[in-house]
Amino acid sequence: MKLDVLFSPVQADELFFTGKTTIVIDVLRASSTIITALTNGAKEVVPVGTIEFAVKVSGGIFGGQTLLGGERNTKKIEGFALGNSPTEYSREIVSGKSIVFYSTNGSRAIVKAKYSANLFVCSFNNLSAIAKHLTQLNEDVIILCSGNNNFFSLEDSVCAGMLISELINVNKNAGLTDSSKCALTLFKSFGKNILKLLSETDHGELLITNGFESDLEACAKLNSTEVIPHYSANVLKVLK
Amino acid sequence: MKLDVLFSPVQADELFFTGKTTIVIDVLRASSTIITALTNGAKEVVPVGTIEFAVKVSGGIFGGQTLLGGERNTKKIEGFALGNSPTEYSREIVSGKSIVFYSTNGSRAIVKAKYSANLFVCSFNNLSAIAKHLTQLNEDVIILCSGNNNFFSLEDSVCAGMLISELINVNKNAGLTDSSKCALTLFKSFGKNILKLLSETDHGELLITNGFESDLEACAKLNSTEVIPHYSANVLKVLK
Repeated sequence: MKLDVLFSPVQADELFFTGKTTIVIDVLRASSTIITALTNGAKEVVPVGTIEFAVKVSGGIFGGQTLLGGERNTKKIEGFALGNSPTEYSREIVSGKSIVFYSTNGSRAIVKAKYSANLFVCSFNNLSAIAKHLTQLNEDVIILCSGNNNFFSLEDSVCAGMLISELINVNKNAGLTDSSKCALTLFKSFGKNILKLLSETDHGELLITNGFESDLEACAKLNSTEVIPHYSANVLKVLK
Repeated sequence: MKLDVLFSPVQADELFFTGKTTIVIDVLRASSTIITALTNGAKEVVPVGTIEFAVKVSGGIFGGQTLLGGERNTKKIEGFALGNSPTEYSREIVSGKSIVFYSTNGSRAIVKAKYSANLFVCSFNNLSAIAKHLTQLNEDVIILCSGNNNFFSLEDSVCAGMLISELINVNKNAGLTDSSKCALTLFKSFGKNILKLLSETDHGELLITNGFESDLEACAKLNSTEVIPHYSANVLKVLK
């Protein structure tokens, strides 16, 4: 088992992911929000790469039972029912619904990795469930941090490092690349208090400034669910 | 003073660097080699973004006193006088010469950052001289790690972290982004024994496999020179 980390989707093209096992992380907030939506009974989440495509898809095959959700640069998009706060995706609102979802970093990262053989979405919320499943799969893993507008994101990298830490606890001989060693080191330095970490990162500070401080608490909840979003045929559903 | 780090040139486009103060790092081996060449009396180093352009330039305005140097994926390029080993760039060979230089990561990173207001090349060899100069300049700094074919490079990142460490020792109030906090953390974890670090990174292991183990020793020499390569009008010369 070899563990590799990309700190931004811009580091690879779509074909790089062909046949690979890929874990997409966007702690603040897309992966936390998607995991919350599926945990609260959403039928599926449809990640899209552009806002235009979100609008197009939502009016088509998913009409009637569809909600548009997401954000652009932390703000809710005009005409969208939901933003990108995990707390908006309550059972009352999302149960049974298809969510067409766009976000600046996370949904685009998922779409970029669409040719993966296995594609799952991870945050602190479902980290141990992901680690357990990857241990069973026993394949090489690419951990794709969604980053922040092509730049490095500390919270995604620490989450990647925590995942690596759980994986190598079981598989002592897992191979680590430069980037996975980096993520593991960051987890050891910053992983003790996740809420504090989130509040001190570039993106966390921006979210606090824009009034989303309570989202940080939701995103910091470690292993609050066993749900693993699994991407197949262009949609994310709960892995059975 | 704000300190930011890019872990790969692919994270930004050319215009991002316009007007900025940029430090390009490619520890293994381009920045170490360029610094060695200028320390040993090369008139200038002309970094180029493609091999074709290297051949074109060397036959033109720099004819006669020109040497072609560099590598592609660690190997010397056919028809080039010099590879990318710092030890090849001795005073006997490079003194007074213009070196047209291409490498897989480093020279392309320099060319990408060409619109910077101030562009300098750094490695462990001249780290303290760079830190001292940046402290005098007192501008915001972008540290551009050349990386490894768009991927993360641990040795470049640790070098960036050491530079940040020296800068914040003097300027306690320097602003750190997610990526500069990451680099600083990596320096604290991996920076105690540079030669050991280099021998254990992805690219260091590849160089050892390809017979370039002695290059690692040259690249690990801390502060062996005061020379700062300064990019202006398409060439790198010693900063006076």
